[in-house]
Amino acid sequence: MKLKIACLGGLQEIGKNMTLIECGEDIVIIDCGMGFPDKDMLGVDLVMPDVSYLVKNADRIRAVLITHGHEDHIGAVPYLLHQINVPIYGTRLSLGIIEGKLDEDPPEYYPELYTVEAGDVINLGCMKAEFIHVNHSIADACAIALRTPVGTVFHTGDFKLDVSPIDDKMIDLTRIGEIGKSGVEILLCESTNAERSGFTPSERTVGSSLERIFAQYEDKRLIVATFSSNVHRVQQIINASARHGRKVAVIGRSMVNIIGAALELGYMELPDGVLIDVSEIKRYKPNEITLITTGSQGEPMSALYRIAFGAHDKIKVSPSDVVVLSSSAIPGNEKLVGSIINALVQGGVKVVHDSTEEIHVSGHACREELKLMMALTRPKYFMPIHGEARHLYANRELAEFMGIAPENIFVSEIGKVLEIDKKGARWSGTIPAGNVLVDGSGIGDIGSVVLRDRKHLSEDGLVVVAITVAQSEKYIAAGPEIVSRGFVYVKESEELILEAKRVVSASLDKLIGKKHLDINNIKNTIKDELGKFIYKETKRKPMILPVISII
Amino acid sequence: MKLKIACLGGLQEIGKNMTLIECGEDIVIIDCGMGFPDKDMLGVDLVMPDVSYLVKNADRIRAVLITHGHEDHIGAVPYLLHQINVPIYGTRLSLGIIEGKLDEDPPEYYPELYTVEAGDVINLGCMKAEFIHVNHSIADACAIALRTPVGTVFHTGDFKLDVSPIDDKMIDLTRIGEIGKSGVEILLCESTNAERSGFTPSERTVGSSLERIFAQYEDKRLIVATFSSNVHRVQQIINASARHGRKVAVIGRSMVNIIGAALELGYMELPDGVLIDVSEIKRYKPNEITLITTGSQGEPMSALYRIAFGAHDKIKVSPSDVVVLSSSAIPGNEKLVGSIINALVQGGVKVVHDSTEEIHVSGHACREELKLMMALTRPKYFMPIHGEARHLYANRELAEFMGIAPENIFVSEIGKVLEIDKKGARWSGTIPAGNVLVDGSGIGDIGSVVLRDRKHLSEDGLVVVAITVAQSEKYIAAGPEIVSRGFVYVKESEELILEAKRVVSASLDKLIGKKHLDINNIKNTIKDELGKFIYKETKRKPMILPVISII
Repeated sequence: MKLKIACLGGLQEIGKNMTLIECGEDIVIIDCGMGFPDKDMLGVDLVMPDVSYLVKNADRIRAVLITHGHEDHIGAVPYLLHQINVPIYGTRLSLGIIEGKLDEDPPEYYPELYTVEAGDVINLGCMKAEFIHVNHSIADACAIALRTPVGTVFHTGDFKLDVSPIDDKMIDLTRIGEIGKSGVEILLCESTNAERSGFTPSERTVGSSLERIFAQYEDKRLIVATFSSNVHRVQQIINASARHGRKVAVIGRSMVNIIGAALELGYMELPDGVLIDVSEIKRYKPNEITLITTGSQGEPMSALYRIAFGAHDKIKVSPSDVVVLSSSAIPGNEKLVGSIINALVQGGVKVVHDSTEEIHVSGHACREELKLMMALTRPKYFMPIHGEARHLYANRELAEFMGIAPENIFVSEIGKVLEIDKKGARWSGTIPAGNVLVDGSGIGDIGSVVLRDRKHLSEDGLVVVAITVAQSEKYIAAGPEIVSRGFVYVKESEELILEAKRVVSASLDKLIGKKHLDINNIKNTIKDELGKFIYKETKRKPMILPVISII
Repeated sequence: MKLKIACLGGLQEIGKNMTLIECGEDIVIIDCGMGFPDKDMLGVDLVMPDVSYLVKNADRIRAVLITHGHEDHIGAVPYLLHQINVPIYGTRLSLGIIEGKLDEDPPEYYPELYTVEAGDVINLGCMKAEFIHVNHSIADACAIALRTPVGTVFHTGDFKLDVSPIDDKMIDLTRIGEIGKSGVEILLCESTNAERSGFTPSERTVGSSLERIFAQYEDKRLIVATFSSNVHRVQQIINASARHGRKVAVIGRSMVNIIGAALELGYMELPDGVLIDVSEIKRYKPNEITLITTGSQGEPMSALYRIAFGAHDKIKVSPSDVVVLSSSAIPGNEKLVGSIINALVQGGVKVVHDSTEEIHVSGHACREELKLMMALTRPKYFMPIHGEARHLYANRELAEFMGIAPENIFVSEIGKVLEIDKKGARWSGTIPAGNVLVDGSGIGDIGSVVLRDRKHLSEDGLVVVAITVAQSEKYIAAGPEIVSRGFVYVKESEELILEAKRVVSASLDKLIGKKHLDINNIKNTIKDELGKFIYKETKRKPMILPVISII
């Protein structure tokens, strides 16, 4: 019997969105998430994992197991279900969020959704999956132990150790230790904070900071931005507000949705009468109000962004406001978050953020916690997952430090297959994997050529040259018309465009009279001659697009 | 007599590139730097300050005073000298770097360059400028005290307090205190690190980290990347190499240039025989070599970038290399730096960077140092400069804490004029300021329209529709030809393009037969109808560019 493990989807981060585990005829998928486009994926809205291997082997898939309800672990569920039907297992909160997504984007196949609790064991063909409770920045997160004929695969999901979590449910170290004692063949271990020393602080420490801030700014209105999915953070903000006699109003669609779901499912507790509608805030003084909002990553469509730039229809800020960013900028978002801070302080608003106060903690294990996970699971083989290469290699170093033999550590790449059997573990080919870029409703028709053109257009603009050629009589019937966009100010550059027309005409004179009218030759000549002329005059290289009409 | 102060140039950062101080008939300029384009300034290479006010008042400008030799303080000197002739004063290293720039880009007017030393006093019409030594991440940096008939303007430049600097020249706190005792009317104080508590560590602490790294990796080749202008950092890397019996080779054009200038001017000392040419490294074992390189910000054309991605013609890396990033990513560059780290670790190279080791210190004063500067200068008025709004307002809070009256603190904006006379200080109008965007050799013809078009093109691509209309006979002689770029894969979308042609033809049928052939009407109809069709089919909004030829 052979066990096969592969990471699907993901951009720089390996194994975050989706992991495939195959044993004999059975396939189990752990997580089904999506990526977010890099800055150089111009115009791309979403990044979905390539699921062609799953579509081809749909009848062998026993389940999709969800570790927790973050977008990068569940965001591709509707996309997958548009193509195949598979049963989905997850804890209550994860499935609650997935149900919301399926309502918004009803799939071709509405799946069987099975709610599990930590401790549950699911039979999946020749494999058995056990869900184990872990701490993370969303409630109800799990690791998964997959018993297979070859041995146990332990997949940590995203986790941290929180000895004083808000819901009093610490990561189940005891069960992890028991599974470790019974033998773990391979540990798939998250790597996000593998470069950070020590332990990640408890979520509860944010409560102390909030308490300090609420006391310091007791005469101001407080606007607190955080991740909507961090139910425990939101709970702490509500608790602090209630203690200080403030009403709480929630703004931002995803924040309203998730708080609704969390209350309904019992993941949050609401002190009586504390929550009010945003339309009611006028009835209170500023210092009787806390607003909880989305937008802590500076997202340009978010409530906080619109508030900061004076574009929110209900909330206007003034020097009687204090904005608290209970978050840290995800790499790549620093500039956006900075622009929000700048806009707010210029409006006289005090901004409290993580470079000035300890107002956020990570949801991921730091180095000592990762080592603890390795010490408890005592795996034979080790595969760092969930991270960019730098994080995977940092986690690899930790594993070596913990005594795992270097030859037993496998740093994967997207689509690469690790094969394990009684003889050992080894790389064994690849399966189709990678990403599908989504722009608008067109799926998969954005690729490297389109992105390369967009990049060229974005940096240098374009010059269109339209010519109408009379084919039989061999003369230029109309044109050249020259139109540019994103290149130069047309009004300031009339002389340049006139001269460009002369250059094109001159270069065509030699060609048009010829026996065989070669359209490609005409196009290439225009590109070459006009390109040279424009570069000489402006030191720029706009895209040159000849359009030839024949009459 | 009236004193006028205004900040010129700069993007989000106020007062970094250029400060104008005007008293009576005399104008003094402090610094003449350039900005670097934001990510959304698509295709823009450089950002120059708008110097139109200076050009108009050229005969009143007594001097440009340079605080130090960083690009954002000197980079616009050639640009200014292409337009007017002004004398320039600076310390030896600053002028050495400026001379290099003027050799590369000879200006219309070659200026008088006056070398000053800290302590020198220069007569500038009704004003007198004194240069005062400060510590910073480049040698030979100065603050400037400008005595004017209205009182003393103290401009800190960029500074930090380093009690154990590499060149043993601590910031001249004594002289700053003396000037403070004699009375400072207004302090213009840098704000970069106004959000950071405590004191910035001494440059010398990096030496201890380097020592540790050199000892730990004594069997590897070391490649150290840092800012080329940080002469003291480079000196420390060379010293550590010499102590560990390594030869040093320098790669990257700006690094070679600055080390050359620094050696020539006596700002660096070279142990005998330590420096070798990069062509000689073959003659040594890996652990006998240190390479010093540019590219610590992940710049795509830099030596380190090319090394990381296997594109450098002389340096190939392997697991026998350790790369040390002696720097921290400037906001906005995190992703680029991350991609270099990922590429290196995937090639088996160990990377040491500032999240794993204390291998970099800032060149800017933290909160306690800023307070010390205020305590010594004891200004009547305070203007935070050199920072984004968030930093200026953080510095404002420090000034209030230090007892400066809130109404005496002025947070400026680009072009805003602060007027001071015996009656007090107040805002008083604006002067032309802001930025000139440079793309290629065209200066100033890139503006919001061009950038907006580039952004549109970059996100959705474009569709060109070319039509040839027979004007007198009123029929479509050729076309519609449809060409797209950056929109969809043409091969996968033939049906879409064919249908688009039918949509355009149908919408034109109604128009072409009309009495008055209205070209604009034709264009708008194409844009509207085709735009609607494409959005319906793809949920995208490419730029639609109709080109009409008339025969």
